[in-house]
Amino acid sequence: MVLAVGVDVGGTKIAAGVVDEEGVVLEQTRMPSPSDDPTELREAIAETVASMRTRHDVVAVGLGAAGFVAADRRSMIFAPHLQWGDASLADQLEAAIGLPVNVENDGNAAAWAEHRFGAGRGVDDQMTVALGTGVGGGLILDSELYRGGHGIAAEIGHLGLVRQGRPCKCGRRGCLEQYASGSALERDAKVAAAEGRAPGLLEAAGGDVEQVTGRMVSELAAAGDEGALALFDELAGALGTGLATLVAVLDPSLIVLGGGVSEAGDVVLRPTEAALRREMTGGDIHPAPELRLAELGNTAGLIGAADLARRHAGLSA
Amino acid sequence: MVLAVGVDVGGTKIAAGVVDEEGVVLEQTRMPSPSDDPTELREAIAETVASMRTRHDVVAVGLGAAGFVAADRRSMIFAPHLQWGDASLADQLEAAIGLPVNVENDGNAAAWAEHRFGAGRGVDDQMTVALGTGVGGGLILDSELYRGGHGIAAEIGHLGLVRQGRPCKCGRRGCLEQYASGSALERDAKVAAAEGRAPGLLEAAGGDVEQVTGRMVSELAAAGDEGALALFDELAGALGTGLATLVAVLDPSLIVLGGGVSEAGDVVLRPTEAALRREMTGGDIHPAPELRLAELGNTAGLIGAADLARRHAGLSA
Repeated sequence: MVLAVGVDVGGTKIAAGVVDEEGVVLEQTRMPSPSDDPTELREAIAETVASMRTRHDVVAVGLGAAGFVAADRRSMIFAPHLQWGDASLADQLEAAIGLPVNVENDGNAAAWAEHRFGAGRGVDDQMTVALGTGVGGGLILDSELYRGGHGIAAEIGHLGLVRQGRPCKCGRRGCLEQYASGSALERDAKVAAAEGRAPGLLEAAGGDVEQVTGRMVSELAAAGDEGALALFDELAGALGTGLATLVAVLDPSLIVLGGGVSEAGDVVLRPTEAALRREMTGGDIHPAPELRLAELGNTAGLIGAADLARRHAGLSA
Repeated sequence: MVLAVGVDVGGTKIAAGVVDEEGVVLEQTRMPSPSDDPTELREAIAETVASMRTRHDVVAVGLGAAGFVAADRRSMIFAPHLQWGDASLADQLEAAIGLPVNVENDGNAAAWAEHRFGAGRGVDDQMTVALGTGVGGGLILDSELYRGGHGIAAEIGHLGLVRQGRPCKCGRRGCLEQYASGSALERDAKVAAAEGRAPGLLEAAGGDVEQVTGRMVSELAAAGDEGALALFDELAGALGTGLATLVAVLDPSLIVLGGGVSEAGDVVLRPTEAALRREMTGGDIHPAPELRLAELGNTAGLIGAADLARRHAGLSA
């Protein structure tokens, strides 16, 4: 077995793991991200890898991180949460670690993992939509990870959903992630609780609207709470409408829903499926993609990053 | 030189041509489409090919047609303008013609032609957006025509632009082609003329709003008429907004604008470019795709269909 280390670097946490060729995580660790200092961040990654190498024979290291990754997979063009510094990230880490390093967008890495080892095994044309704090994604087209002309494809969260809609952190308005992310769900839940449309939520939050969380919505929806289910229906309506555009353009066979919001399961999957079928052009004639929940949870990013690094180094099939 | 015949079958006209391996059209013919009778339609195509074969040594035949083409490229799943009948179109034509036949969506065929021989030569990741009666398109990803999981990708005209917007023939509302096609331009031009916002147009139409055409808008815009230019700006604003979503998802290096509307040239290209840059997520950081006008005009469809048939038959590089 050829082993690789995958490192999923989030804004607050770093998750690293030793991953085998079948996507099995042999060892895993999590730690806080030193988000303000590029040197500390690189050192934390290098030390974690060094520690894992004392126990495993590792051939390559893959990083998954939020933001725009350069087309050569060696540095970040833009990162919303972390300070990576200006120099080539892969050069610096390779010097510190002594192994080939490959940098990948976190959404791409997770999509690749689901394609190779998770919900998308054996499907040539698929997209993963990660419903987290924002909405990320990755495209597998003709069985390959599609990166675009400049390496930064699959920014699905910034699909334009509503003209002159809700302002987005990206500077535009009406982006999908303002309607279908974990943050959007929480914001909408607070409003619903404040307006008396979700009494169950308000109660769960001890009567304090500010304490309402997305997780509470998931838990109450699972228990059949109407206010919580209505919030998922609203999110699913927006998501299904956005997916309809992606289906018209890309015609995938499969859409995998991942990220924290997808952990709510059928209460988000079923209404999204219904909304997509309602909104799809040529709905009666156009074969609809299947929708599935992601299988690898929050280890998808590190599994995919590891597998892509192994492939990129020419060390696996 | 290995020659193929390309046939672009439109709702009202059939264009056929003998195309060499460098995309040069050696001979071309146009005739009306027998749109109501599948047998007549096939016979018209077979006779045209037979006639061309008396003068050229042809190895394959490619059809380009509007609609959803089956993934095996042998029949139509759905055609909006023509009656093709239920049987396999390629089987029937091969029996009649005695050569391999490949069926392709017309937008895909035109995009392939621009990639191989036109505005997109040498660019790996590009899309062609055809602004005609509707809005069609084709995706070239990693230098290959991307057809999707069911063979019907690149229905760019049905990108959802405005929620609850203008009704579309597809049954949904707010599709891009209701704002950025030749039909949309003509409709908007008639309204502008009727409302006194385009006096030049009304004059060109002899004072009769119903006589206003898209071509008049192009001609007046080329001459600097403000009302006509404003109509292109409006169309370009919608198109640029739709393209911004496609850029977020696909990150192409190049977008080729084709179809009748694109013949207006810079008056549509420049404001579309401006709108795209304004609407793009990460506009300062995200490398913008180049926008170019298509080079092959309305022969792109038959050139691409011929070249794809030659490749599909394994008879060219």
